[in-house]
Amino acid sequence: MAARRKLRGGMVGGGHGSFIGAVHRMALCMDGEAELVCGVFSSDVEKSRAFAEGLYLDPARVYGDYTAMARGEAALPSEQRIDFVSITTPNDSHFAIAKAFLEAGFHVVCDKPMTCSLAEAKELAHIVRQSGKVFALTHTYLGYPMVKQARHLVREGSLGTVIKVLVEYPQGWLAPLLEGDDLTFPVWRIDPARAGPSCCIGDIGTHAESLVRYITGLQIEELCADLSYYIPGNRLDDDGNILVHYHGGAKGVIHASQISTGEENGLNIRIYGTRRSLAWRQEQPDTLALKDMDGTTTTYSRGSPLLCEAAKCASRLPVGHPEGFVEAMANIYLETFRAMSAQQDGGPSPTGDFPTVDDGVLGMAFIETVVASAVSDRKWTKLLI
Amino acid sequence: MAARRKLRGGMVGGGHGSFIGAVHRMALCMDGEAELVCGVFSSDVEKSRAFAEGLYLDPARVYGDYTAMARGEAALPSEQRIDFVSITTPNDSHFAIAKAFLEAGFHVVCDKPMTCSLAEAKELAHIVRQSGKVFALTHTYLGYPMVKQARHLVREGSLGTVIKVLVEYPQGWLAPLLEGDDLTFPVWRIDPARAGPSCCIGDIGTHAESLVRYITGLQIEELCADLSYYIPGNRLDDDGNILVHYHGGAKGVIHASQISTGEENGLNIRIYGTRRSLAWRQEQPDTLALKDMDGTTTTYSRGSPLLCEAAKCASRLPVGHPEGFVEAMANIYLETFRAMSAQQDGGPSPTGDFPTVDDGVLGMAFIETVVASAVSDRKWTKLLI
Amino acid sequence: MAARRKLRGGMVGGGHGSFIGAVHRMALCMDGEAELVCGVFSSDVEKSRAFAEGLYLDPARVYGDYTAMARGEAALPSEQRIDFVSITTPNDSHFAIAKAFLEAGFHVVCDKPMTCSLAEAKELAHIVRQSGKVFALTHTYLGYPMVKQARHLVREGSLGTVIKVLVEYPQGWLAPLLEGDDLTFPVWRIDPARAGPSCCIGDIGTHAESLVRYITGLQIEELCADLSYYIPGNRLDDDGNILVHYHGGAKGVIHASQISTGEENGLNIRIYGTRRSLAWRQEQPDTLALKDMDGTTTTYSRGSPLLCEAAKCASRLPVGHPEGFVEAMANIYLETFRAMSAQQDGGPSPTGDFPTVDDGVLGMAFIETVVASAVSDRKWTKLLI
Amino acid sequence: MAARRKLRGGMVGGGHGSFIGAVHRMALCMDGEAELVCGVFSSDVEKSRAFAEGLYLDPARVYGDYTAMARGEAALPSEQRIDFVSITTPNDSHFAIAKAFLEAGFHVVCDKPMTCSLAEAKELAHIVRQSGKVFALTHTYLGYPMVKQARHLVREGSLGTVIKVLVEYPQGWLAPLLEGDDLTFPVWRIDPARAGPSCCIGDIGTHAESLVRYITGLQIEELCADLSYYIPGNRLDDDGNILVHYHGGAKGVIHASQISTGEENGLNIRIYGTRRSLAWRQEQPDTLALKDMDGTTTTYSRGSPLLCEAAKCASRLPVGHPEGFVEAMANIYLETFRAMSAQQDGGPSPTGDFPTVDDGVLGMAFIETVVASAVSDRKWTKLLI
Repeated sequence: MAARRKLRGGMVGGGHGSFIGAVHRMALCMDGEAELVCGVFSSDVEKSRAFAEGLYLDPARVYGDYTAMARGEAALPSEQRIDFVSITTPNDSHFAIAKAFLEAGFHVVCDKPMTCSLAEAKELAHIVRQSGKVFALTHTYLGYPMVKQARHLVREGSLGTVIKVLVEYPQGWLAPLLEGDDLTFPVWRIDPARAGPSCCIGDIGTHAESLVRYITGLQIEELCADLSYYIPGNRLDDDGNILVHYHGGAKGVIHASQISTGEENGLNIRIYGTRRSLAWRQEQPDTLALKDMDGTTTTYSRGSPLLCEAAKCASRLPVGHPEGFVEAMANIYLETFRAMSAQQDGGPSPTGDFPTVDDGVLGMAFIETVVASAVSDRKWTKLLI
Repeated sequence: MAARRKLRGGMVGGGHGSFIGAVHRMALCMDGEAELVCGVFSSDVEKSRAFAEGLYLDPARVYGDYTAMARGEAALPSEQRIDFVSITTPNDSHFAIAKAFLEAGFHVVCDKPMTCSLAEAKELAHIVRQSGKVFALTHTYLGYPMVKQARHLVREGSLGTVIKVLVEYPQGWLAPLLEGDDLTFPVWRIDPARAGPSCCIGDIGTHAESLVRYITGLQIEELCADLSYYIPGNRLDDDGNILVHYHGGAKGVIHASQISTGEENGLNIRIYGTRRSLAWRQEQPDTLALKDMDGTTTTYSRGSPLLCEAAKCASRLPVGHPEGFVEAMANIYLETFRAMSAQQDGGPSPTGDFPTVDDGVLGMAFIETVVASAVSDRKWTKLLI
Repeated sequence: MAARRKLRGGMVGGGHGSFIGAVHRMALCMDGEAELVCGVFSSDVEKSRAFAEGLYLDPARVYGDYTAMARGEAALPSEQRIDFVSITTPNDSHFAIAKAFLEAGFHVVCDKPMTCSLAEAKELAHIVRQSGKVFALTHTYLGYPMVKQARHLVREGSLGTVIKVLVEYPQGWLAPLLEGDDLTFPVWRIDPARAGPSCCIGDIGTHAESLVRYITGLQIEELCADLSYYIPGNRLDDDGNILVHYHGGAKGVIHASQISTGEENGLNIRIYGTRRSLAWRQEQPDTLALKDMDGTTTTYSRGSPLLCEAAKCASRLPVGHPEGFVEAMANIYLETFRAMSAQQDGGPSPTGDFPTVDDGVLGMAFIETVVASAVSDRKWTKLLI
Repeated sequence: MAARRKLRGGMVGGGHGSFIGAVHRMALCMDGEAELVCGVFSSDVEKSRAFAEGLYLDPARVYGDYTAMARGEAALPSEQRIDFVSITTPNDSHFAIAKAFLEAGFHVVCDKPMTCSLAEAKELAHIVRQSGKVFALTHTYLGYPMVKQARHLVREGSLGTVIKVLVEYPQGWLAPLLEGDDLTFPVWRIDPARAGPSCCIGDIGTHAESLVRYITGLQIEELCADLSYYIPGNRLDDDGNILVHYHGGAKGVIHASQISTGEENGLNIRIYGTRRSLAWRQEQPDTLALKDMDGTTTTYSRGSPLLCEAAKCASRLPVGHPEGFVEAMANIYLETFRAMSAQQDGGPSPTGDFPTVDDGVLGMAFIETVVASAVSDRKWTKLLI
C-alpha cells in the first residue's frame, strides 16, 4: 500500500448505542492505515461533543450536522482535511449525506442498505460516477477471507456448474417483541420512516443476496417472496422466505429472519454444483467446507497456504488464531483505502475488492422486488431493475 | 409387552440390492420381538429362493408372488402363519400388496410413500379401516428418540407458539447423473411407472413433511412449490423448494433434493416458537438443541433421565452410546408389535406411536399438491385433500 | 459367509438390569446370522426363568448355573446344541465360565476385561489354544468401521511414522457418588471382589489401550500411572492419567475416568504422524478426520466408496444413515461367526478381525502394570508381561 | 475509562516477519485508547526505519536500540513521551529491556515467557515492585470473554469442587521439520540462546498453565514431565506431556506440542467439578459449554446478557458476531490502560484483570520444574519456587 501518511476519516452517525458505528471505528483504525479525526455523532451537538470526547477527537472537528461537516472539512487545508467519510446513520439519511460528501470531494464508505428506494439508489450511482470518488458499501460479510476463498473455488470451476444456492440469515434479536417483552435498546429498523420499505429484508436479506452474488456471480431473474409480520403492530417485515430463479437456470432459497428465537447471527450459505458443493457459516468464519460426491469433505482453514491470493491477503493471523467480524469490516476498509491511495497517486480507476454503488443499486432492486412480490399475493416477480 | 411368543413376519420385496429391505429385516428382529419366516424377494422365484437361503428361511415359505404368499400363509395353521407382512417393493405395488394382505387378515408394515396417488391412498385407508388390522407406514425418522423429545417439548409449550418451521432434506446420491456419470446401482425412483408422480418429493419430501407434522401437529393450508429436473432427461423432480403456510398462521420452508452434491442424508428441522426454538439433525440423531433468547443453548442427549417417556421408551442404550437409523426403524416396528399384541390380547384399538394409513393419505395429498403447484407455474395452491 | 444354518448361541449373565447383556443379544441376532437359544441370566433360577420368558426362550434351555449349562448343552444332539456362549457376567467369573465352555467344546465370546489377573489371562490363553475353539473378547469399539479405516490409513503409511498418540475415555456415570448422591443402579465395578484390581482402568482404560494397539500396532514399553480414588470410600480407581512410552519411540497419554461430570462415553483418539494426523470420536463414530500440514482436514464418512475393504465390510448402511454401538458390537460378532463357520467347514484357523485371547492377555498386563506403577509412587514401570 | 487523551506506546521488537508484533499493534490501537508513536523494530537501524515508515511513525522516534529509546523517550517533554512500551522481542532480551524501561519510568507490556530463567523472573518482579509501574504479561488467551466466564462459573461454585483439569495445547507448525522439510520463516524458538531452557513448554505450555491458574486458581504442587525432542537435531523440547498434582487434591494433565501435525492452535481446557464440568476451545472462543450430570449441556455465547460482568466488559459485539485473537489481546491492553490511567489519576494500585509479573514468576517456575523433572528421568518433582 505504502501511502506516505495515514488516511483521515470522518464519521456521520454511530454515536451512543450504535453497534455498527463502533465496528466502523475499530475497523477503520485497527490496521494502522487510517485515523478518525472528525464527525457528527448525534443530532444534538452537545451529545455529539460528549461522545467525541470519549474518542479523543479535537472538539473543533465535531460538527453540528453533516452539511456543516462537509463544508467545514472542505474548507480545511489539504494536510488536515479528511479523505473520506463513514456513514453509519439510519437508512433514510444515507442518500443525502453521501451526496453531500461526494459533491464536496470526499470518498464515501456507507452502511447498507444504501438508500430507501431503488430510484434514490440509481441517482446515487449517477452522483458517484460524476464525482469520480471511491464509494464503498459495507456488506461486511464479503470481507471474510473464506468468503473470498469460496468465490475463488466457484470461479475456478471446482464445483462444476452451480445449480442451487441456499442462503439463510436467521437472527432472533427482535423475538422478545413477539410476546410483548421489551428490547433493551431502541429499534429504528421497524420504523418505515427510518428504515425504508423493509425491515428484515432491507437489513439482512440484502446481506444474504449480496453474498450469493459475490461468491457465485449469479443474478436474480425472478423471485417469489413470502414476507411475515409476526411482531404485533409491525408495519415492516420481520421475516421472509424467498424462492429465487437466477439467470442461467440456477435456483435458490433465501430466508432471513429477525424473530427466529435463539438464533444469533446465523448467516450461512450452501452452494451446490454439478461436481462439488460448498458450505460456509458466518458464526464460524475461519473454515470453509468443500464436499465431494465420494463421501469426503475437505475443510480449509483461514491461514492455510493453499488459499487463493484474495483470501490470504484478507487474513492477518496464522491458522487457529480466530479472526472475526471486525476484521471482516476492516478488510472492506483496507480495500477502499487501496483504491483511495491509488487515486491519490494519480491512478484512474477507484476500484477494488469492495462492494460498490452498483451493488447498492442491485440490493435496492432486490428489496423492492421482494416487497412487490409479497404484496401482490406472493406472486413470482421479475427483478425490478 | 410380554407377548407369549415372538411375532412372525413375512416380507414382500427387499431382495438383492435393496437397502431398505435389509433395514426392515434388521429392525424387525433386533429387539427379539419378532422373526422373519417367509417372503417374496424377487419377481424371479429362483432369485427369490437363492436370496431367502442367505436368510436361512424355510424354502417352503418362499413364494412366487405376493398373491400366493397371502393365500399360502392364510392357509397355514395359526401357530405357523405370519402375523404381519413388511412391504418394501417400489411404490407402484404398495397398494395392491397391502390390500391383498389386509384382506387375508394380516397386519401390514408398508414403506413410504404409501401409494402412487391420493385416490389410492384414500381407498387403502378405507380398506385398513374395514380390516381392523394394524397398518404402519415406515417414516423411519419418527422413530428417533430425540424426535419424540422434540414433539414433547413443542406439545408441552416450551417453545411458546410455533411460528416458523424450516425443514430440509438434502441428499446427493443422484448427483453423479448430473454430468452423465453412472450410478453403481439401479434407480427405479426416477421412473414414473414405478415411483408415481414424484421422485424427490415422493421419496424424501414426504419424510420432511411428516416430520414437521409429527413434531408440531401443524397441518398445511397452502403451498408454493418450485420443482426442478436437473438430471438430463429426468421426467420426475430431483429437487424441490417449497414455501408453506400452515393452518393457524405458522409458515415454513421445505426443501428436499437428491442432487445436492456432497450431501449425505441431511434431514434436519428447526422449529421457532415465540419463546424458544429447537434444532435436530438426523445425521447426529442423539442430540437435540433447545435455544433460548438469552444466548444459551441447552443440548439434550438421548439417554438423559430428563427426557419424556416416549423418548426414554424408544432408547436402548445409555448416553454416549450412539444409536442410529436401524434403531429408529426398530422403534417403529416395536410400536406396531405393541399394537398387534394388544389386538391379539383382545384390545380394541390397534394404535400406537407409529405413522398410520391416515398419515399416508396426508403424505400423498402433500405430494399431489406440490406437483399441482409446480406444474401450474408454481402458484400458491391449497392442500388437495 | 453362507453357513447353511443360523448359529446358535447361549448367554451367561446379562439378565435384569444389565446394559451390556442387552447389547450382546441385539448384536448377536440383528444380522440374522445367529439366534439365542439358551442361557443363565441370574444366580436365582426363578429370576433367570422369568427373564428368559421375556426373551421367548424354551424354558428347558434355561439352566441353574453355567456348569449345568455347559454340561446340558454338550449333551444335546448336535442339531440342537449351541455353537457358542456369550459371557456377560462380572469380571470375577469370566475365567471359570470361559474355561468350562471351551473345555465342553464351545466357542466363547467374552466381555472385557478378560479376567481378574494377568496370571488367569495367561492360563486362559493356554486353554483356548488347547481347545482349538474361537475365543473373542468384545472390545466393542474395534468394531466401528471408521476405526478400521483409521487402522488402514496408519498401516498404509498415510500418516508417515506415528510419533504421538492421545487417547481419552472420560465418562461421568459415577460422578453422582462424589458428593454422596445415589446411583439409580447397582455398581459391582467398584467392588474389588467382582471387578478385579481396577475399576476405571479395567473397565474402560483397557478399551482405550486396545484401541491404540488395534489402530497403530504400537506396544507399550513402559508407563507412569497416576490413579485417583475420588469417590469417598472407593477402594478401586475411578480415574487415571497415564504417560506411555511405546516400543520404537512413540509416546502417548491415556486418560480414563468415570467421574468426569457431564461426560457421556467420550472415548476418542488422536494419532500424530510425521506427515498427517487422525482424529476419531466414539460419540460421532461415522466420521474420521485426516489432518494435513497444509491447513486442510479431510473428513471421511462411513459408507464412502473410498474406504478400505474392512471398513466397507463392517458397514450396513449408506452415508448419512447413522450406525451406532450395537452395530459395532454386531461387527465383532459377525467376525467371530465367520471364524466359527470357517472352522465348521473344516478350515484350520479360527481367526478374523476380532480381539482374541492374546489381546486379553495384553489388556490384563496393561491393567496390572498401571496398578503397579500407581501404587509404587507413580513410578515409570516396564510392561509386566 | 475517560482518560483525557490517548495513551502513547512504543514498541521494541515486532518488526518484519513478526506475527506477535503485528498483533500487539492491532490490539494496542483498535479500541482507540492508545496509539503507537515510537519504536525499535530491528537491530539494524535502517531496517527499523523502513519498517517504521510503513507504520507512519515519525522517523525521529525510531531508535537504534532499546537503551537509546528508553533514554530518548525519557528526555522528551511529558506531552510527547510514551506512557508504556510493548516488548515483543525473543525471550532472551525481555529482562534487560523491561528493566531499562521500568527504571526509566515507563509502564511495560511484555510478551511471554517473561524471562529466560526463574532467577531473572524473580529479579524482575523486584524491579517492578520498586518501580511502582504497571507491568503486564501478554497471556493473550486470558483476554477472551468466555475464559472470564469460565473463571466466574468456577469461582461462584457452579462446578462444585474442582477435582480434575485437562488442558491441551497442540500445534503443528514445527511438524514440517520432522522429515526435514523447511519452514517458510525463521525459528528462533528452537535456539536455546534465544528461547531459554524450553521451546514448547516455554512458548505454549506456559499459556496452558496460566489458563488453568486463571480460571481455577489452582496452584501446582508437583508434576511429572515427559518432554520430547522429535525434530532431528533439536536441542529444545518440541512436545511435552505432563501429569500434575495441584495443592488441595485436584489433578490434571497438560500436554503441549508444536509437532502435532495438522493441529492449528488447539488450546483447550476441560474442568471437572463434583457437580458440573466446563469445556472451552480457543479455536471457537465465543462459546463455553457447561455440562451437567443429567445429560444436558448448556452452551453460553459471548454477548449473552447472562454472562458475568468481566465477560460482558471484555466483549465488543453482540452474539453471533465473532470476536477473535486480536480482541483477546486488546482486552489485555485495555485492562493495562485502565491501570495506567488509574495511576495517572493518582490511584495507588496499578492492578487490573491482566497477568502480572507474579504470573510471570510462576510461569518461569513451571518451565524450570518441567525441565527439571524431564531431565531427571521424568521423576515427580515439587514446584521449584
